[in-house]
Amino acid sequence: MDFTVETATAAVIESFQGAPDPRLREVLESLSRHLHDFVRDIEPTMAEWEAAIGFLTAVGRQCDDTRQEFVLLSDVLGVSMLVETLNGAEQGTESTVLGPFHMTASPRRELGDTIDLLGTGRPCVVSGRVTSVDGTPLAGAELDVWQCSEDGFYDVQQPGVQPPGNGRGLFHTGPDGTYWFRTVIPSHYPIPTDGPVGDLLTATGRHPYRPAHIHFIAGADGHRRVTTHAFVGGSPYLESDAVFAVKRGLIVDFTESHDPAAAAGFGVDAPFTHATFDIVLAPATGA
Amino acid sequence: MDFTVETATAAVIESFQGAPDPRLREVLESLSRHLHDFVRDIEPTMAEWEAAIGFLTAVGRQCDDTRQEFVLLSDVLGVSMLVETLNGAEQGTESTVLGPFHMTASPRRELGDTIDLLGTGRPCVVSGRVTSVDGTPLAGAELDVWQCSEDGFYDVQQPGVQPPGNGRGLFHTGPDGTYWFRTVIPSHYPIPTDGPVGDLLTATGRHPYRPAHIHFIAGADGHRRVTTHAFVGGSPYLESDAVFAVKRGLIVDFTESHDPAAAAGFGVDAPFTHATFDIVLAPATGA
Ligand SMILES: [Fe+2]
Ligand SMILES: [Fe+2]
Repeated sequence: MDFTVETATAAVIESFQGAPDPRLREVLESLSRHLHDFVRDIEPTMAEWEAAIGFLTAVGRQCDDTRQEFVLLSDVLGVSMLVETLNGAEQGTESTVLGPFHMTASPRRELGDTIDLLGTGRPCVVSGRVTSVDGTPLAGAELDVWQCSEDGFYDVQQPGVQPPGNGRGLFHTGPDGTYWFRTVIPSHYPIPTDGPVGDLLTATGRHPYRPAHIHFIAGADGHRRVTTHAFVGGSPYLESDAVFAVKRGLIVDFTESHDPAAAAGFGVDAPFTHATFDIVLAPATGA
Repeated sequence: MDFTVETATAAVIESFQGAPDPRLREVLESLSRHLHDFVRDIEPTMAEWEAAIGFLTAVGRQCDDTRQEFVLLSDVLGVSMLVETLNGAEQGTESTVLGPFHMTASPRRELGDTIDLLGTGRPCVVSGRVTSVDGTPLAGAELDVWQCSEDGFYDVQQPGVQPPGNGRGLFHTGPDGTYWFRTVIPSHYPIPTDGPVGDLLTATGRHPYRPAHIHFIAGADGHRRVTTHAFVGGSPYLESDAVFAVKRGLIVDFTESHDPAAAAGFGVDAPFTHATFDIVLAPATGA
């Protein structure tokens, strides 16, 4: 039978019926259905199809060891956030996007260490406690932390300007489940706009900015890992994050303190900024 | 309001409302809707989302001046054929996929020239007439022709083995609308399998083969261009083309001839193969 607009989807789905992995078969069947529906919906001209191929190719060619343009595309289309939300635990700290900058391993650091290797900014202390949903403190929980500089750039975006590992740290909570580290307040920042995803935002009149935030991946034995952010309260763009990642429960007060005693307790000079971000992990399901 | 599985699509569509180009807005709105539906349908794990990002990145990185892996992906998912079919004229010769090998300009040749620059195969003559739907012969119609070798490779796939332009020719029909050229019978061939699209076919138990064919793009003043193939009758894989491009009306008899007079008329030696492929163009719409 000839391939027609009506029979197209059945023919493609049929071609995947021999896939040994049932999940792969299911995913490709669904992909074929929704992708064909999209094509039938918009009825692209050949020139539009060529433009789409050209766009995807440009996105791929923009990717390298320090740039993940497909993650960026997934982010600005809300797909990353949708997948993250579908995978989030029902209890505990809410999840949000991983983002494209978690591409190098965070250096292992001790509690109280600074992740600010530049040393030029006003000190900021971030502290908190990691607990299970029933309130039990989780000792030895792993916290993978990464953030941009005061100027709004991650280390990998500024080789030669920032030392590798600036703004990054891998911490473990103490016996009482608490953690703390020193840093600087991250800036709001634009996602990289010098590639095809930036062109897409420009063409559609969207701004590229994300509100200021610190990334966390938190995990502990017997608990589900959570990928999340602590958003800086009062930051611009909290209402219009370019990647749709803000959840109200993740907005944290970054409070200025002029208390010399408090500063001395953290080994910094007053005035300093202090943020408290507690993290609640849901027990692992199954097993 | 927080981003949720339920509000995700509305939030992303809303973000595109400022796009000045209404068609771009329409396409992105439809894309957001269908893409999110797909994600909600399959509920990918984070690992599956990462695998999808990795796959798309690999497809992009496989692309270069002589390889278009995104076209290949579009082909094996039936998208190319669907777009081509949606754009086909209702009358005249049916269209089929462009394919990924129309990446270099075909050298201009005279009627009767050979496009086989290797000179090692049994001669094949392809001839026909280009007419309008009402039967009027179309003089000076342009025929862009390309095909693989007897071994199943396009020139761009074998630099150093095939001279550039082997299997390619840009012809113009004579005063009576007819054309003819010399070549060799193309082989059925696998689409390139050394990239991520090949991996996808392997993982799903699909073969990569296309039935033997000669590509044509035909155009004439006042008429719609058609992108099509002449499929070699009796070729393997006519029933299971990896890119879904076969239409029964495009299958052509490639007939063996032992007639020395017929051979001499075409300037070849008997035995030779002769195929007749007439092309009917629909008048241009509008204007
Ligand atoms: Fe970030
Ligand atoms: Fe081909």
